[in-house]
Parts: sequence; structure tokens; C-alpha cells
Amino acid sequence: MVEHTVKAFDEDIDSLRGLIAEMGGRAESSLENAMTALIRRDKELARQVVRDDPKIDALEEQVERLVVQTIALRAPMANDLREVVAALKIAGVVERIGDYGKNIAKRVPLIVENRKLELMSLLPAMGQIAGEMVHDALNAFAARDADLALAVIERDKVVDDFYNSIFRTLLTYMVENPKMISESAHLLFVAKNIERIGDHATNVAEMVYYAATGQYLPDRERGEAPEDGAGK
Amino acid sequence: MVEHTVKAFDEDIDSLRGLIAEMGGRAESSLENAMTALIRRDKELARQVVRDDPKIDALEEQVERLVVQTIALRAPMANDLREVVAALKIAGVVERIGDYGKNIAKRVPLIVENRKLELMSLLPAMGQIAGEMVHDALNAFAARDADLALAVIERDKVVDDFYNSIFRTLLTYMVENPKMISESAHLLFVAKNIERIGDHATNVAEMVYYAATGQYLPDRERGEAPEDGAGK
Repeated sequence: MVEHTVKAFDEDIDSLRGLIAEMGGRAESSLENAMTALIRRDKELARQVVRDDPKIDALEEQVERLVVQTIALRAPMANDLREVVAALKIAGVVERIGDYGKNIAKRVPLIVENRKLELMSLLPAMGQIAGEMVHDALNAFAARDADLALAVIERDKVVDDFYNSIFRTLLTYMVENPKMISESAHLLFVAKNIERIGDHATNVAEMVYYAATGQYLPDRERGEAPEDGAGK
Repeated sequence: MVEHTVKAFDEDIDSLRGLIAEMGGRAESSLENAMTALIRRDKELARQVVRDDPKIDALEEQVERLVVQTIALRAPMANDLREVVAALKIAGVVERIGDYGKNIAKRVPLIVENRKLELMSLLPAMGQIAGEMVHDALNAFAARDADLALAVIERDKVVDDFYNSIFRTLLTYMVENPKMISESAHLLFVAKNIERIGDHATNVAEMVYYAATGQYLPDRERGEAPEDGAGK
């Protein structure tokens, strides 16, 4: 009987991990496609990202249902319970990452002219780093790999540095090109969305680190990038 | 035995409602104080908002622990289980509302000059409406009041209209006053944060409406305000 319950619990956990891996893959694609759509000014690809987002939401609901069912039926204790709750929280964060990708995609039709912007090199690079952070954070979760989680956390500074540089570049650009202020404002929000994706990947990595080691990281301020002044 | 469990469950639910009411009160104060700090350029009040935010996070963690404990020990079914899960989700949303208040407060020190901005009348009005939405959404939750929830949902359009008007006003202002571009950009983020608070209050109201009536609202697009082009 106990063995049966343990086996059933392990199967639940495997299902949860599978669902979260699928969510993570979709959230990554969402960011990647949104950035490609932005660079290529591909409105159809941008619409596709928006259309795909409800699938991530539906997966999160599946995770929620399975978590409730697992707690109610298997009555997991201590470590097992922590793992189930961590899965629920991580699913919530991944859903938000997907939302940020969707938000970027929604701005694509508004950024008509982007050829001349030097930051059209910086933004995709920033997006790629944030995407890798999401990827590695979820791999760290799947493999319970504290070192990989730590590497994700350390990379958040790089994303913040990109954000600060892009923020200043855009503001200077706005001063010099008043006609481009509207498009620049949209790009400011795009940069902010990527910066938030980095923060959320970091949150996932922190949860993985705690679950794997039982230790909290030394206190670090979280939240938005510091240099536009609104963060840390 | 059954009666004992039912009573214990009711006590758990009461505790959950109490915790969420406290979270809601704190999230409202966070927004209100952040807006006051912005208008009065009161950096100390802004810092206070940032310092108070961890209390909201701690309350959310209390909600999570109590939800897990309730599901594990009381094994609630059907409606009861839905109510517990709704409490968990609403706590998550209220925590995010608190974060947006904190993010507004963090920008206060960067908005040095604001006397001349006409939108220093619009922004507080927008903030007040969003704050009332949060307040009413949580009252609707406490009273299981579907009508009040519906009223919150309908007010989201007002917040979106404010956001769109402020977005356009700020962009025009930036074109005409290049020296104020940096401060205007920060105000743009402030407006976006308030708009997101309205969205989240709406999310809570939608959950309350569903929990109270068992019916989903007719399909409406959610998310960011439409007119800056990034939404709906």
C-alpha cells in the first residue's frame, strides 16, 4: 500500500516535471519568436506568438489541478510536499515569462521603422541571454542542479547591464529624434519586458537552488534593473 | 468526526480570508502611498513603501502554507476545494499588485520636476480608480458578491482610457520638451504599472465572479491597455 502510494507520487511528480518542461519550452519559443518578429518586422509571426499564449495558460491550469490532486490523494510530507509546491510556484513564474513574450509580440506592429537603430543589435542579444536563462533555469529544475541554478542567478546582472545601456541609448535617441519618440517608447517597454524575463528566470533558479541545497542564497535585492533607477 | 473536520475547514477558510484581506489592505496602501509620494515628491514615503513590500510577500507565503495544510489535512472536495485554490490564486495576484506599487515608489526619486506636468492631475486620478478596483475586488471576494465583481471588471476600461490618454500626453510632451524625456519615461512606466494594477484587480474580480456564479464571463480579451498598441 505504501509502495503503491510512493509509486503513484513519483508518477505525479514526473507528470508535473513534464508539464513544466513543456511550459518552459513554449515560454522560450514565445520570447524567441517575439524577438525574431521584432527584428524582421514580421507581424504574422508576432500574431502567432499572441495566439499561442493561451496554451501556456492551459498548461499552468493542468499543473494546478495535478498539484491539488497530488496533495489531496498522496498526502506527501516534508521534502515531497516542498517539491510539489515548488512545481506550482515555478509554473506560475513560467506563465508570467510567457506573458512578457506575448507583450513584446504585441508591440511589433507599432515599431515600423527600426533599421537605423543601433540598439537593434543590443535588444536581440539581450533577448537571447534572457532566453538562455529561462532554458537553463528549467534544466536546473529538471536535473535539480544547484550549480546550474547559481550560474543563471549570476547572469541576471548581464541582462540588467543590457537594460541600463538600452534605456540610456533610447533616451538619447529620443532627444535627438523627436519623430521616433513613439517607437522608442515601445522599444523601452520591450527592453523592460526582457529585463523582467531575466528576473523571473532568476526567481526560478533561486527556488531550484533552495530546493536542491536547503539553503537560501546570501541576501540579494531582487526586482528590476537598478540603473534606470527603478530597481534594486 | 465529520462535523469536527467541517468546523476545522471553516476555520481554515476564515483564516485564509483574513490573511488575504490583510494583504489587500497593504497592497492598496502601497499604491496609495506611492502615488502620494510621487505627487509630493516625498522620497522618505517612497522608501517606506519599498520597505513595507516584504510584509505582503510574507503574507502570501502564509497563505500558501495554510492552503497546502488545509488540502492535506481536511481533504476538501468540489466547491470547498475550489474556494481554497481560489484563495491561493488571489493571494498571488495581490502580491503582484503590491509589487507594482513598490515599482512606482522606486521611481519617485527619479521624477524630480513634476510641477508643470498637466498629467500630474491625471495620474493620481488613475491611481485612485485602480486602488478602488483593488479594494472592491477584495470586498467582492470577502462577500462573494458577483455584482460588485462585475462592477470592478467594467471599470477596467476607465483605467485603460486613462492610460491611453496619459501615454499620448507624455509622448507629445517628450517631443516638445526634450530635456524632460528621462522623467517622462519614468512617468510612462508609472502609468503602465497603474494600468497593470487595474488588470490584476480585474483578474481577481473574474475569479470571484466565477466562484460566486459558476459561470465564466463572456469572452473578453485581457491584458494591457489597447491604445498604446501593446494590448488587447
